[in-house]
Amino acid sequence: MPLDLSASSIELTRQLCDIESVSGDEREIADEIEAALTGLPHLEVLREGDLIVARTRLGRDRRVVIAGHIDTVPINGNLPTRFETDGDVTYLWGRGTVDMKPGAAVALKLAAELAEPNVDVTWLWYDHEEVTSDLNGLARLARTRPELLDADFAILGEPSNGAVEGGCNGTMRFDVVTRGIRAHSARAWMGENAIHRAAPILNALAAFEPESIEVEGLVYRESLNAVLIAGGVAGNVIPDECVVHVNYRFAPSRSGKEAEVKMRAMFEPLGEFVLRDLAEGARPGLDDPLAKQFLAAVGAEAAPKYGWTDVARFSALGIPAVNYGPGDPSLAHADDERVAVEQITACERALREWLA
Amino acid sequence: MPLDLSASSIELTRQLCDIESVSGDEREIADEIEAALTGLPHLEVLREGDLIVARTRLGRDRRVVIAGHIDTVPINGNLPTRFETDGDVTYLWGRGTVDMKPGAAVALKLAAELAEPNVDVTWLWYDHEEVTSDLNGLARLARTRPELLDADFAILGEPSNGAVEGGCNGTMRFDVVTRGIRAHSARAWMGENAIHRAAPILNALAAFEPESIEVEGLVYRESLNAVLIAGGVAGNVIPDECVVHVNYRFAPSRSGKEAEVKMRAMFEPLGEFVLRDLAEGARPGLDDPLAKQFLAAVGAEAAPKYGWTDVARFSALGIPAVNYGPGDPSLAHADDERVAVEQITACERALREWLA
Repeated sequence: MPLDLSASSIELTRQLCDIESVSGDEREIADEIEAALTGLPHLEVLREGDLIVARTRLGRDRRVVIAGHIDTVPINGNLPTRFETDGDVTYLWGRGTVDMKPGAAVALKLAAELAEPNVDVTWLWYDHEEVTSDLNGLARLARTRPELLDADFAILGEPSNGAVEGGCNGTMRFDVVTRGIRAHSARAWMGENAIHRAAPILNALAAFEPESIEVEGLVYRESLNAVLIAGGVAGNVIPDECVVHVNYRFAPSRSGKEAEVKMRAMFEPLGEFVLRDLAEGARPGLDDPLAKQFLAAVGAEAAPKYGWTDVARFSALGIPAVNYGPGDPSLAHADDERVAVEQITACERALREWLA
Repeated sequence: MPLDLSASSIELTRQLCDIESVSGDEREIADEIEAALTGLPHLEVLREGDLIVARTRLGRDRRVVIAGHIDTVPINGNLPTRFETDGDVTYLWGRGTVDMKPGAAVALKLAAELAEPNVDVTWLWYDHEEVTSDLNGLARLARTRPELLDADFAILGEPSNGAVEGGCNGTMRFDVVTRGIRAHSARAWMGENAIHRAAPILNALAAFEPESIEVEGLVYRESLNAVLIAGGVAGNVIPDECVVHVNYRFAPSRSGKEAEVKMRAMFEPLGEFVLRDLAEGARPGLDDPLAKQFLAAVGAEAAPKYGWTDVARFSALGIPAVNYGPGDPSLAHADDERVAVEQITACERALREWLA
């Protein structure tokens, strides 16, 4: 059954959720979105894989990207959706009802209905957000058709409980490796114990006091943690290697390079430092006039985003970007994922007012 | 071809080596040993699985067990054996030439030839020494027919370079487990890091100064080591568990219970203590008159054994026991395992003189 864009954004959320679209299986939902928008006279509709772009070409002096992903994490007995009430609150329950079919539904409804928004809008629904970064639809578009992402401001419809979350921390992963010499543990003194040599690394991590750094009015809380540790060969062998895998989340005031220099200074004296992964943070960009205007219009409070999100991809392109969408992010990926339907309506109303 | 017990102990070693007998595959070599001994009028020959016992019943007031295992670690292109010379030294090369076919061959030759030793002798060739303890042939006999192990003194023909190695350290393995609370590493402060909590455990291990303890004139060197460490769930999750697996090798002056009390006192304040494995040490027993007489007769120096060996099984039965055999123990299990043939002859001569 084709999507009904004249239905409410709540109903449209339900329709989108009931089209299963676990990452890698987005073709059907992309087909439906493309079909629903094609033929609307105020939109140019383009497709790249299972990513759909619909944009106005009104010659406004500002352009905004409003984007959201259409894939979900795997289903676990939580489709089809159903409505349920809890006290006075009505919820839509099921996979994708938080992350992030409501944001995609609101965008779809507004794309169809707002023929003359006060800024040009590039509406965007993309695939493969819930899996490894190299498959990410937005990243793919930035490589293949970056001109389609040109804009002065971007909004990602990720669940944020209706608040505006700006920027994000950077994240970096690295190994600190200690070495030793193997020996039979019955003659331990013939060897050198690499696990014992990891003690100063754990001491440094346990004693580290992470900073909280204010960036453009938002406070980003940093963290530094061993997330994995592995060492040893067998129960009777003195271990010759121990690997501590560390995750550093750093405020967007630091570049990735600066974060790396800081970590190398701290850990290179303690072991071999092997950088595994580095993603730049994103400044919130809330001092941009369009962002200020958006905040005022939607009447939402700004908060820092801690997790790395696709906001950082816009930031890397020089476009201020925020997360703004219905749904409680702590329920994302949960088996009892559900959204208070009033949040969907509120989000639609706020965006509509800002764009009208 | 049947074993030729009239050949030299060097030649007999070669014959035993060329019968492949990796642990679990000892039937053929046990058959050959049984066949070679059966019918000799001065010996009572018994079989239990692939373990062969041959004993004199001369009514002597002292009885000695002389035992050796007949299995080897897996073959790795190192059979059949060959003789090779290196300078003035002639070697027999190949799997089992050190661990421990020469000891088994010397015992076999002397069992056949010494019809009237000055003590009663229980000769013993057993299976499954190179694998887990629950399969060990000697342990099986101690369970099923302990009376066959009755003796005043025991000699294991394990390679000891012709020295006498007395007793052995005990060994104990335990986990020290720290717990935390999982959280997404982007919001690390919502969790508690179990790996960081392992820092005091590694500090205690790194700072520990193991003792050296003299027992009956031999100095046993202790050791305490983390041999394995593992913690963490994924690169973006604060870990909720870290397991440090520790091996404590303790002098035979301590009972296993005492060793456990010591380790619990040290580590229980730092994490959950889980005992995994405990094997008592064995006192050298070299103050026993028979042991002293044996040492004087073979003219060998006594040294402590560090690794846990089957000597401890005799010790547990109250029988003083030592390792004494041809071959350099550092070549045991090596692909270039080889024995200086002169060591075989020397060992045979010393045992023959002591028993005659």
